Amino acid sequence: MIKINSNYLKLQGSYLFSEIARLVKEYQEKNRDKKIIRLGIGDVTEPLPQSIVGAIKKAANEMGVRESFKGYRSDEGYEFLREKIKNHDFSSRGINIDIDEIFISTGAKEDVANIQEILSADSKIAITDPVYPVYIDSNVMAGRTGDFKNGRFENVCYLDCLESNNYIPDLPKEKVDLIYLCFPNNPTGQVATKEILKKWVNYAKENKSLIIYDAAYEAFITDPSIPKSIFEIEGAKEVAIEFRSLSKTAGFTGVRLSYAIVPKESRAFDENGVAHSLNKLWNRRQSTKFNGVAYIIQRAGEVVFTKEGREEVDKIIKYYLGNAKIIGEGIKKLGIRYSGGVNAPYVWLKTPNNLSSWDFFNKLLSECQVVGTPGVGFGKCGEGYFRLSSFGKREDVEEAIDRIQKLSL
Amino acid sequence: MIKINSNYLKLQGSYLFSEIARLVKEYQEKNRDKKIIRLGIGDVTEPLPQSIVGAIKKAANEMGVRESFKGYRSDEGYEFLREKIKNHDFSSRGINIDIDEIFISTGAKEDVANIQEILSADSKIAITDPVYPVYIDSNVMAGRTGDFKNGRFENVCYLDCLESNNYIPDLPKEKVDLIYLCFPNNPTGQVATKEILKKWVNYAKENKSLIIYDAAYEAFITDPSIPKSIFEIEGAKEVAIEFRSLSKTAGFTGVRLSYAIVPKESRAFDENGVAHSLNKLWNRRQSTKFNGVAYIIQRAGEVVFTKEGREEVDKIIKYYLGNAKIIGEGIKKLGIRYSGGVNAPYVWLKTPNNLSSWDFFNKLLSECQVVGTPGVGFGKCGEGYFRLSSFGKREDVEEAIDRIQKLSL
Repeated sequence: MIKINSNYLKLQGSYLFSEIARLVKEYQEKNRDKKIIRLGIGDVTEPLPQSIVGAIKKAANEMGVRESFKGYRSDEGYEFLREKIKNHDFSSRGINIDIDEIFISTGAKEDVANIQEILSADSKIAITDPVYPVYIDSNVMAGRTGDFKNGRFENVCYLDCLESNNYIPDLPKEKVDLIYLCFPNNPTGQVATKEILKKWVNYAKENKSLIIYDAAYEAFITDPSIPKSIFEIEGAKEVAIEFRSLSKTAGFTGVRLSYAIVPKESRAFDENGVAHSLNKLWNRRQSTKFNGVAYIIQRAGEVVFTKEGREEVDKIIKYYLGNAKIIGEGIKKLGIRYSGGVNAPYVWLKTPNNLSSWDFFNKLLSECQVVGTPGVGFGKCGEGYFRLSSFGKREDVEEAIDRIQKLSL
Repeated sequence: MIKINSNYLKLQGSYLFSEIARLVKEYQEKNRDKKIIRLGIGDVTEPLPQSIVGAIKKAANEMGVRESFKGYRSDEGYEFLREKIKNHDFSSRGINIDIDEIFISTGAKEDVANIQEILSADSKIAITDPVYPVYIDSNVMAGRTGDFKNGRFENVCYLDCLESNNYIPDLPKEKVDLIYLCFPNNPTGQVATKEILKKWVNYAKENKSLIIYDAAYEAFITDPSIPKSIFEIEGAKEVAIEFRSLSKTAGFTGVRLSYAIVPKESRAFDENGVAHSLNKLWNRRQSTKFNGVAYIIQRAGEVVFTKEGREEVDKIIKYYLGNAKIIGEGIKKLGIRYSGGVNAPYVWLKTPNNLSSWDFFNKLLSECQVVGTPGVGFGKCGEGYFRLSSFGKREDVEEAIDRIQKLSL
């Protein structure tokens, strides 16, 4: 008898964005004359720069001619792309990453969800709260957690991120094997200094742990003192794997290109305590279960690491950061406390008058037709918080803030 | 202490194609004047039709304009594509498949490797021998097998496919939970009649098993009596999941687009024997661990299901089938027995004089500079067999067969 993976029965409904969509639709139907402004979903809104459009068209033409047609290629990605990533993201910052430590993929979501496969099923995991749900759900599916009780999965080490600790998690009090960190953070918009990352790298070394570092929002960092990669920390290569993406960097949410950095030094241990290279294991995983990213998409990605392309995508990043600044400064004037808004596309605010996340959501929707994301949707510690996203048109962001400022809060 | 998934240590090296590449390179270096013809790898060689190139360029332009820019969309794929697949592949053949039973993905390799995740880790699997290695390796990684001993993994039901059973596996003698079938078959080129598939569907119903049906080569079927989908068999929806791909159908090995058909009726059971819909489980898996296929790639795929596009890709399929026919008829004249060559892009031949697979490989390479794939690379039962692929230029195929015919075998 074929049986299901019963771990799936532990999963909780992922109703956050569908619930938001339902409430917004319901409101709009009752209030057809009202213009709703959406600052809820973390999806980019600006079109692709023309240099990238041109690269896609050029690659499409190549695929239409036998001499330049491309079929299967190495699962890890074309060297022309990995070479440029190595130079742009790492060599230029004094980090030595070889191209065979760079694995091209279709999304950081996929990579961050799949990476746990190469690790033992009995690994103890630590995640922050609030958190991007994929970290926890992929581990629930793999059986690394207990049941869901009182808003949390059993046998998981939750790292609270609250206003009181400036949204920077404290080190775990217990020993953990696998740690998920994301900076700039989704949803809190908080960034980590070198000192903070050093603490985590040291913890991982002392406890033989592994850090999964999600750097999907690194392009939003403008402060030169803030590290863009965990590999800026000495010794991190032994204890960390980093995920990067062009989704937010270059508006690739609908184009799908990401890359994982799995250093040859990064290791996990077998039952006898012998260290194994995670680079080799990930290579084996990818070559067995993945067939690479489309040639035309890799050519599109390549442009992002050229001078011309980078100038174009940087303009878009600046545009979103401009939006974030307007949101942050606007709500600051109202006396609302928040994190993010700089070095990140999100503003994570403490709801006024201790409103619950959903009460504040309903208040904004009904009183000024602005849609955001209730913080509790990202975890227990998100209750009483709210996320506003800077992805959107400037004039909409300005109007949204204008409307919020006119509310009685 | 972070530990590795120790199942990875059971995996065997996947050296087949790299070993072939090494031997060919070595030979070429010693014999620089010789022209080597490669009929080894199962990768397409004809360029994309212009209708598909045009669709990619049009979609790229849309991505460059804010009003038509596309970011995240549903993980299952755009309706415009799923609707066309439903009509072209299924409705037209009298099969009722809803669009929410169609999941767009980046590759059949990915899907066929990932599908086991939603099933219990203690499922007993059955695979054919010879076999596409991903079926077995993905299960080794997930811990469903024992160690590798005497050329096979323990605790796996191997279904021998030999000349003696016409390369059609017999039903398992033991009870199995999960069965991998691939028709037209890689590597044997064999196809399954309705009667054969009925036997398997009945087995799966009686034993509450699940069939993973790999139909990646269905486009090569020209005989109208041969089913292109397992869902042409009554009752199959309850016991089967089917994987399809545009890789071979439309030359998409470097474009990356596939689709899984997971019927709502398809089921597996929990510990209490209660049936669960695999459609829901797969949907949950994909929405948690996958972020969809690039918009421009889905637009490229859409063309394959239009009249104009299908005519263009059918021409290419006919071209490869023409090659397959030349290979089959050519080696038949030599008295070599084989399967495939019709309804499939592969010719699977019994080596003359009972040569081992590798001896025949070396003979062809050294005596007539033709490269094929040793059958033993696909499993123990492949020893003494050899695969020739029809992907390549017509003139190369003709010359290769001409050269083989001049050998003393």
